[in-house]
Amino acid sequence: MKQGKISEAVIRRLPRYYRHLITLNEQGVERISSGELANIMNLNASQIRQDFNNFDSFGQQGYGYQVKNLIKELGKILALNKTYKMIIIGAGNIGRALTFYDGFRNSGFEVCALFDNDPSLVGCMYRDVPVYHVDLLEEYIAKNNITIGIYAAHSSFAQDLSEKMIKAGVKAIWNFAPVDINSSVPVENVHLVDSLYVLSYKLNNQSGA
Amino acid sequence: MKQGKISEAVIRRLPRYYRHLITLNEQGVERISSGELANIMNLNASQIRQDFNNFDSFGQQGYGYQVKNLIKELGKILALNKTYKMIIIGAGNIGRALTFYDGFRNSGFEVCALFDNDPSLVGCMYRDVPVYHVDLLEEYIAKNNITIGIYAAHSSFAQDLSEKMIKAGVKAIWNFAPVDINSSVPVENVHLVDSLYVLSYKLNNQSGA
Repeated sequence: MKQGKISEAVIRRLPRYYRHLITLNEQGVERISSGELANIMNLNASQIRQDFNNFDSFGQQGYGYQVKNLIKELGKILALNKTYKMIIIGAGNIGRALTFYDGFRNSGFEVCALFDNDPSLVGCMYRDVPVYHVDLLEEYIAKNNITIGIYAAHSSFAQDLSEKMIKAGVKAIWNFAPVDINSSVPVENVHLVDSLYVLSYKLNNQSGA
Repeated sequence: MKQGKISEAVIRRLPRYYRHLITLNEQGVERISSGELANIMNLNASQIRQDFNNFDSFGQQGYGYQVKNLIKELGKILALNKTYKMIIIGAGNIGRALTFYDGFRNSGFEVCALFDNDPSLVGCMYRDVPVYHVDLLEEYIAKNNITIGIYAAHSSFAQDLSEKMIKAGVKAIWNFAPVDINSSVPVENVHLVDSLYVLSYKLNNQSGA
């Protein structure tokens, strides 16, 4: 793999390629050209070829790409061949929804524990996942080799608790609070309100998708 | 406002500006330079000036921007001075979490009803929001002037039910299913799994955020 200089825009398209290729594989498609894939994904073929050229092992262009092979290579690039232990700070609605969410549970991402400071939530179990007091956060992360910390609690504690998670050993943060976190490890944001505001803008300024 | 030719990247930064300016206003800041704002937001000042130049009424550069005025103008551009009636398809964990979510409830975005086909959910109330059978979807949208349809059910029904929502009068779709929807109205996606895969990539390929 070449890598290293991959742009943010390309990185953000990789999961989408992966998702569409999984579907194609389920449909029994063995080989696909960049043109056919472009058609399905509403992209243009040259962009797909350019994206895939970032990774040299994909180079079968002209003959089409082998779907199974692309899935395997993309899975490696996205590091989906590993498993990740995760904890969630915040056992409210978002935290619980993520605990129950099946979308990543089967891809090696495991929610091990929830943390909250609300006494009515501490001690609860959601699915098979316990809620602990947030005072136990750092000890738990260190002892259980937690790699990903999910933040789904109030914005005002996001910076402080993120720093605690990082000190305790977390290697990446998935943030659901509507706030920007300064961090020495990668942070990926799901800013729900920002997303809804973009939709509101488009609803009022564009007619098509 | 100039508008019309605003790029996707600029549109996506607008809610973030709005969020930071709201915080600054709460902190009592009345005026801010592009340099100070750049510092807070980890952007560079020239990008901020360029972004704001898309909208002519912002042009006070050199003296700094008036925070309250910027909030008002950004709010208008994002069309947050209106109210939006929304419905959610899917009364599962994500649908319920969005029903209970306070982040947009106070900004004019109101969840009016949930729809599901699970008999154990139809008839339930979450907060003050009823769950109706999905067969009633189109009639409800048309009668109640619903503007935004939120899709939080199984991927396999996403295309079909989106088309039904659009025919019934919905003007925009907020999609939480891990699938791309072809639509004649704007679609904004919250692809949780894609977001987690990007984090997984960065965790394995980058050390900083």
